[in-house]
Amino acid sequence: MDVVAGIDIGGTKTKIGLVDKKGDAQEQIFFRTREYTNLDDYLDKIRDSIEGLKTKSSIPVNVIGCGIGAPNASSRNGTIENAANLLWKGKLPIVKKMQERLDVPTRIMNDASAAALGEMLFGNAKEMTDFIVITLGTGFGAGIVANGQLIDGYDGFAGELGHVDMTMGDGRLTGLGVKGGLEAYVSATGLKRTILFMMSKYMNQSRFRDIAYNDLHGEEITKAAEEGDFIALKAFDHTANIMALALANFTAFSQPEAFFLMGGLVNSGKWILDPLKTYFEDYLLEVYKGKVKLMQSGMPGKTAAICGAAALIWENHR
Amino acid sequence: MDVVAGIDIGGTKTKIGLVDKKGDAQEQIFFRTREYTNLDDYLDKIRDSIEGLKTKSSIPVNVIGCGIGAPNASSRNGTIENAANLLWKGKLPIVKKMQERLDVPTRIMNDASAAALGEMLFGNAKEMTDFIVITLGTGFGAGIVANGQLIDGYDGFAGELGHVDMTMGDGRLTGLGVKGGLEAYVSATGLKRTILFMMSKYMNQSRFRDIAYNDLHGEEITKAAEEGDFIALKAFDHTANIMALALANFTAFSQPEAFFLMGGLVNSGKWILDPLKTYFEDYLLEVYKGKVKLMQSGMPGKTAAICGAAALIWENHR
Repeated sequence: MDVVAGIDIGGTKTKIGLVDKKGDAQEQIFFRTREYTNLDDYLDKIRDSIEGLKTKSSIPVNVIGCGIGAPNASSRNGTIENAANLLWKGKLPIVKKMQERLDVPTRIMNDASAAALGEMLFGNAKEMTDFIVITLGTGFGAGIVANGQLIDGYDGFAGELGHVDMTMGDGRLTGLGVKGGLEAYVSATGLKRTILFMMSKYMNQSRFRDIAYNDLHGEEITKAAEEGDFIALKAFDHTANIMALALANFTAFSQPEAFFLMGGLVNSGKWILDPLKTYFEDYLLEVYKGKVKLMQSGMPGKTAAICGAAALIWENHR
Repeated sequence: MDVVAGIDIGGTKTKIGLVDKKGDAQEQIFFRTREYTNLDDYLDKIRDSIEGLKTKSSIPVNVIGCGIGAPNASSRNGTIENAANLLWKGKLPIVKKMQERLDVPTRIMNDASAAALGEMLFGNAKEMTDFIVITLGTGFGAGIVANGQLIDGYDGFAGELGHVDMTMGDGRLTGLGVKGGLEAYVSATGLKRTILFMMSKYMNQSRFRDIAYNDLHGEEITKAAEEGDFIALKAFDHTANIMALALANFTAFSQPEAFFLMGGLVNSGKWILDPLKTYFEDYLLEVYKGKVKLMQSGMPGKTAAICGAAALIWENHR
C-alpha cells in the first residue's frame, strides 16, 4: 500500500506516522524533539523512525513522499527559519536534508497551514474553497485557504495570525515581543495570563490564588469553571471575547465560509465556545452576519498534525 | 477597436470610460450619482452614456463587455448590497439589469478589488502574485491578491479591511457603527477626526482652531503640515502610525510582496508616507522585515477606477 510519511515537528514532541490516501495513520510514533541538539542527528532519527514504522507495519508499505509540518516553516524555501521553540537556529534547509535521507518527494509547511490542507483533503472542509483553520495550543496558529488554495504569501510565511496586534500597540507581549499580539491573549498560555489578570483586577476568592503560574494547567481552568470559580469564568469570557473580535477581523479579510478550531483550548468546550459564538456573531459586520460557521475540526485530535503533514504530498496525487 | 465599458459607481460620482486592451481609457465621462433616485433611471443613464461615448469616439469601437466597480458589491451574486453611500437600498441585481441593457458580458466587483485587478493587468503589479491595494478616500478599501488570484471570499465580500477593529472594541465608530474600525482613523475622514482629537489633547496654536470640521479639507491639512502646524504634524504622524500597525497586521495574514497605496490621502505625500514607512518596518514581525514594499499605484489617478472596472472583463481576454 502507498503511504506518505507525515512528520509533525513540534517544540516538545516530534510525531511521525505513515498515512494512507484516505488520511488514516497506519502506524505512528513520537519522540522528544529537544533530545537532539544536532540537527543532522535529529533528521537521522526521523529516517530511522520511518524505517522502523515500515518494518512494524502488518502489510507491506511503499513510502511515496514525505510531508512535514513545523513552526516557522517556509513552503517556498523548504526551510525552517528562526523558530522560537526549536533549539536549532538560523535558516534550516530541512527539505533538502530530508530528501537526501529518504530519496522521495518532500515538502514542508507551517504546521497550521498543513492542518488546513489536512482538513480540506481528509476532514470537514472537503467541499469548501474558503476557510481558516485556527490551532489553539501553546500559541495561536492559522492556516488560510481562499479560492481553494492555501495562502502561502510572498515567501511562504503567511498566516502568522497569532502576532497581529489588536491593541494599538499597547498590550501584552508575545514570546516574539509583539505588543498586543493575539496569542498573548488567545492560547493556552494566554488563558493562564488572563487568570492572573483577573486575579489582579478582582478580589473574589478563587482556587487559583493557591496555585503558582508555573503549576497551572488548562484542564484545571476548565474544572474550575465547572465548579463556578468566578476568576475562571471571567477568564474564559474575556478570552472568548478577544478571540471573537479577532475572528471577526479575519472575516473582513478573506470572508471564510467557516473557521475550524483545533488544539488544547478547544478542549475547554462550552466554556470557550459558547461565549465565542455569541460574541463573534455580534462583532461581525452586517454583511457577514449568519454566514460564517465556527466548527470543530473533523480530524482526529491525536493524528491531525501528521495527517495534515501527509496532505502536503497527497494533494498532488488526486 | 475592441473596448470594455468600465464603470465606477461612487457615492458622489459615477465615472464611465471605454478602456482598451492596454488599459488606456479612450473616452470618458462622469455624472452625479445622487441625481438618480430610481435605480432603473440610473442604469438607463449609464447605457445612454456608453452610447454617447461610442458615438464620440474618433475611431469605431466595439464594446465587448462591461465591468463595474462599486461599494458593497458582491462579485459572486452580481449585486450591490446595502451600500451605506448609495441611495438605493437592499440587494440590487446590477449585473442582471445592466446585461439586459447592454447585451454584453457584465461583471461587478468591490471597487478596491477592481482596483487590484487593474493594478495586476495594467499597473505596477504585473509580475506579482501576492499584493494588496489600499484605497484611501472617504473610507478605507482593500483589494487582496494571493496566489495570483483576487480573494473574493465565500460570497464575494472579502477585503472589508476598513472595518477591522484594532482597539479591542474601545475606539472610534465607523460609518457602519464598527467600534475602533480602521477607517475611522485611516482615511480622509479619519485624518480630519484626528485633527479634532489632537486639538482636544494639546493646547498648541493651530490654523484649524479657526476652521469648522465641515469646512475642513485634506489639502489644507497637507498645507498646514508644510507650514509646520503642530496639530497637522501630530495628526499625520498618528494616522501613519495606526496605518503602519494595520498594514503589519495584514502582512501577517497573506504576506504580500507589496502594498499599493492610492486615493486622496496618498496625495499628502511625504507627510503620511515617510512616517508610514518607518513605523511599518518597525511593526513588522522579524520574518517579514525588509521583504514588504510600500508602493504607489501605477494607475493614472483619474482613470484608475474605470480601468480597474474594465479589468474585470479584460482578465478573461488574455
